[in-house]
Amino acid sequence: MLISELSARTGASVPTLKFYLREGLLHPGESLSQTRSAYDETHVRRVGVIRALTETVGLSVQQTRGVLEVVDSPGPDLYTAYGRALGHLPPAVPESDDYPRARAVIERLGWAYEPKHVATRQLEQALAAAEAVGVPLDDERLAVYGPHVHAIAEHDLARVPREPDAAISYAVLGTAAHEPVLAALRRLAHQDIAARTTTG
Amino acid sequence: MLISELSARTGASVPTLKFYLREGLLHPGESLSQTRSAYDETHVRRVGVIRALTETVGLSVQQTRGVLEVVDSPGPDLYTAYGRALGHLPPAVPESDDYPRARAVIERLGWAYEPKHVATRQLEQALAAAEAVGVPLDDERLAVYGPHVHAIAEHDLARVPREPDAAISYAVLGTAAHEPVLAALRRLAHQDIAARTTTG
Repeated sequence: MLISELSARTGASVPTLKFYLREGLLHPGESLSQTRSAYDETHVRRVGVIRALTETVGLSVQQTRGVLEVVDSPGPDLYTAYGRALGHLPPAVPESDDYPRARAVIERLGWAYEPKHVATRQLEQALAAAEAVGVPLDDERLAVYGPHVHAIAEHDLARVPREPDAAISYAVLGTAAHEPVLAALRRLAHQDIAARTTTG
Repeated sequence: MLISELSARTGASVPTLKFYLREGLLHPGESLSQTRSAYDETHVRRVGVIRALTETVGLSVQQTRGVLEVVDSPGPDLYTAYGRALGHLPPAVPESDDYPRARAVIERLGWAYEPKHVATRQLEQALAAAEAVGVPLDDERLAVYGPHVHAIAEHDLARVPREPDAAISYAVLGTAAHEPVLAALRRLAHQDIAARTTTG
């Protein structure tokens, strides 16, 4: 199909598609002439992935490119690929020697504390931001969150495909795409509880 | 204090502070002359809030302004203010007549389905994005997520201050600032489980 049809199929405008091609998010079509290329179903699917990551998950073009690079060239193991992908997801945090807030929480929960993990830095930054905003999370709160989040994560891991490439793609895209689902569910649960309390 | 001292206290550059003032995120100081104003501790705290929301939570300037407007002028009740604030948090979603994916999930969980709620639209959009990315969430998965997320939300609600203005500020800022903490905890739990599985 030509780019005009790819636009009609995906709902993305032709200038947007040209932008994705220029930025290397979308792989080139098969060249038909100097100005025309042919696109196929792989392009349709890829445009859907790019739009979901940018528009709903809210990633920047640069973050989207980083996540898709891990999916496209995952390397040999899931654990390393997952860590690389997390480095492209918000919040972007500078490296440091120590993460005292994150360490205290992780050790209290009995999880493995690993300062090299990007997620450790991200937790430190998120805890500091909650303090800065005036809504710090105390130990009791985190002790309640921890086991629930761990149970969710255990279920996630049980669903990862066994085939290595599929597993990496699943873990990377699932982390990006499932976080907004969990956030929306929590917002809805708040409203569900508030509605029951107000009317009941 | 002058703007230079506010900059030193907060770590935000003078041009950044001027930008916050121009955008109405930061309230003006007390005018000392045509070019100098005096700032106080309320400005120091506000700059911390603005930076946490933009840099760690990842809100745009427009989203940050929207959230802070709700905090500054909350209106009479928590429930409405919370809904208004959610409209400023990502994902930004167009209104629609029906939200079939969200309705199915909410009804299966036994929560109150309310299509007028912004969070209902956000759940619909997030579920559609997960499908588009190729990592849809099936019923079994959502049935596991639901009760854990509801338990977290119940604990959240129990911690909301009783005084109405403080309650609204807490609910609005807590939703924005605690979501990155929960996301980081889930990422860490994934790595904790993966590490145990690989080495154990």
